[in-house]
Amino acid sequence: MPKNIFYAQSGGMTAVINATACGVIETARRERRVGKVIAGFNGIVGALREELIDTSLESKKTISGLRSTPSAAFGSCRYKLKSIEESRAEYERLIAVFRAHDIGYFLYNGGGDSQDTAYKVSQISVEMGFPITCIGIPKTVDNDLPITDCCPGFGSVAKFVAISTLEAGLDVAAMSESSTKVFVLEVMGRHAGWIAASAGLAKAARNSSPHIILFPEIKFDQKKFLTKVKETVNRVGHCVVVASEGIQYNDETFVAETGIDDAFGHKQLGGVAPVLVDQIKREQGYKCHWSVADYLQRSARHIASATDVEQAYAVGKAAVEFAASGKNAVMPIILRRNEKPYRWSIGEVSLSKVANVERKIPRSFISKDGYSISSRCRQYLAPLIEGEDFPPYRNGLPSYVRTENKLLKKKLPRFDVQ
Amino acid sequence: MPKNIFYAQSGGMTAVINATACGVIETARRERRVGKVIAGFNGIVGALREELIDTSLESKKTISGLRSTPSAAFGSCRYKLKSIEESRAEYERLIAVFRAHDIGYFLYNGGGDSQDTAYKVSQISVEMGFPITCIGIPKTVDNDLPITDCCPGFGSVAKFVAISTLEAGLDVAAMSESSTKVFVLEVMGRHAGWIAASAGLAKAARNSSPHIILFPEIKFDQKKFLTKVKETVNRVGHCVVVASEGIQYNDETFVAETGIDDAFGHKQLGGVAPVLVDQIKREQGYKCHWSVADYLQRSARHIASATDVEQAYAVGKAAVEFAASGKNAVMPIILRRNEKPYRWSIGEVSLSKVANVERKIPRSFISKDGYSISSRCRQYLAPLIEGEDFPPYRNGLPSYVRTENKLLKKKLPRFDVQ
Repeated sequence: MPKNIFYAQSGGMTAVINATACGVIETARRERRVGKVIAGFNGIVGALREELIDTSLESKKTISGLRSTPSAAFGSCRYKLKSIEESRAEYERLIAVFRAHDIGYFLYNGGGDSQDTAYKVSQISVEMGFPITCIGIPKTVDNDLPITDCCPGFGSVAKFVAISTLEAGLDVAAMSESSTKVFVLEVMGRHAGWIAASAGLAKAARNSSPHIILFPEIKFDQKKFLTKVKETVNRVGHCVVVASEGIQYNDETFVAETGIDDAFGHKQLGGVAPVLVDQIKREQGYKCHWSVADYLQRSARHIASATDVEQAYAVGKAAVEFAASGKNAVMPIILRRNEKPYRWSIGEVSLSKVANVERKIPRSFISKDGYSISSRCRQYLAPLIEGEDFPPYRNGLPSYVRTENKLLKKKLPRFDVQ
Repeated sequence: MPKNIFYAQSGGMTAVINATACGVIETARRERRVGKVIAGFNGIVGALREELIDTSLESKKTISGLRSTPSAAFGSCRYKLKSIEESRAEYERLIAVFRAHDIGYFLYNGGGDSQDTAYKVSQISVEMGFPITCIGIPKTVDNDLPITDCCPGFGSVAKFVAISTLEAGLDVAAMSESSTKVFVLEVMGRHAGWIAASAGLAKAARNSSPHIILFPEIKFDQKKFLTKVKETVNRVGHCVVVASEGIQYNDETFVAETGIDDAFGHKQLGGVAPVLVDQIKREQGYKCHWSVADYLQRSARHIASATDVEQAYAVGKAAVEFAASGKNAVMPIILRRNEKPYRWSIGEVSLSKVANVERKIPRSFISKDGYSISSRCRQYLAPLIEGEDFPPYRNGLPSYVRTENKLLKKKLPRFDVQ
């Protein structure tokens, strides 16, 4: 009997992580060398708690519908396994669960932290003598995994942010003569500014939006920023700013955390956009508007990049193929074969090289003044948002599927996860 | 020689106001009883300054492209004319400009304030003896104009908000076990809660998002709200809140303005979402995320409602037809002919009945507890988001057109607009 696959979704959502799940399950159903796909309910926590979803009970139509459904159908978590030395009980529990449910493959779909977890689990084979084949599957809106050319999940958030910047930029331009002069859009990106950079794709001409991009890779200089805003309003008539949530002052304090006290004197709220708008209003008196995209950007499956959807599916498919062919402790990656026209293929990398490495934007991808993307960056980003993959619609809304998530019968005693 | 049409876009942007412009210009180009369409550069301010765009110089392709381009191609403004008694000089200037450019029709495309302006201009004929035919054209994301069944611009923001609530709701649901428990989405609506109400279309079942809608029509009761949040998290595992920007406490202070001081002690920032999140965190300690949709919602042409686009075009077309047939001081409206299947047609109403009347949500459209929409409201809203009218795409981004906006040669001395 072929061994079953354990598949788990991890970390923050993306518009296409379910497309990866679709790739995993559809491929496994065709692949004779593997058994069924058992999904962790809420990620790896589901493995520890023995809360295991039997995906073989989901219809073909539902699984196919995952390709166009955002978020994580099986639930996700933020849970980082410590080392085997520190958390031996957890690893022993994983082995017990894997053994009880005849699991021989561990597929873990997530970002940097998750690849670290996948790598640690892969060491079980060696250090604890339990045969398990571990494959990491890349996923992150932040695009900050190393080695792979890009990360599934990023292309779609990039497309949403570029389109939103284009659209909101037209809005401000039309109103600026007598009303709003400055618009600030806050996007995700604690450490890496790839999402903010993608707004730069909306810029068609020197004076068009966005006029200023604030990257976490560039220290925030308030005085220089305000001068740039003023200069832009004087030249263009208005100014559109796209800011990463993670921008910091020189002393490494987050801009989002500065200066905002609530009525009780607590430092509160967060949000870079309102802080920037506050600075602009106080110094320059311009009428401002601001938006915080937050979850809207990463779950916007309605405007997913077709390239991103294809790549998300492809890494899921490749993960099963890698597993079936006995590869261990690797992660499928996207290789850029050609830029114009864009061609890509799937490659692989050892998990040991991926775990806990964060890829930030290289300085050469940012303009000299630090406020826009370079043409090299634009070349890199452009193909990732190409193509539209609209979900099916019913009554004006996308028809997203919902999996049944029926759990396998538990065979082991209860295990408490801290 | 037929008289020219003066057309102006007014007030805040929508995803489809340019579809109305497209309807006006394409219809006028076919209509022998009217001359060319002269657009005000930045709305009526353009008429006062004699900054007049000659739309006959725009290509057929560009005008056709306006149908799928958001924002106001000719620029907009927030400028309210006072009465003829108070601002006689402005009305005399308008007459001088209309006379100099052979303008016999005044088409004004906007919300409540704009319909008031259109009505005042229509009085020029009577009170100042200058023959001008005035037609108001409805436009507002707020859906707060009276008599018309709905307002062009609303259906598209409603669709964006419903889809965003659906998508972000799936995001929170997948993460809530170990991470974010509450998500707050702030949407537009100072006085009328139609936009917030539209989020209710995303709700497929009792426990699905949104769990709480905060309408400006219902006074905000912090204690009751926090109890409802807690009860929802306990029952569902998470809670999605959609809040109108304009919600108020019983004493009519805006929630957005309460309690938030910056480091200098100024009341600042605004934004209902962060205030609500602050209350939830402080009382209940839940991990929260929040988003402020702001301009993103009203300029999201990429996900416009096909119904809305058709209606926006139709009111533009009707305005020219009304003008050509000699109607004066009227506004085309949307009549609901049938609900299932939805059928509508164009009617008309006197501007005197529209000006300065604001239509809020009737109490019967809101659930007894004040936190969701009634089935009657859902029936009303559902057809307005029906159908998708995707813009054309190029290189992954919508191909929005840009008009040339060539100004007519000035014939009059300068006039300063306050």
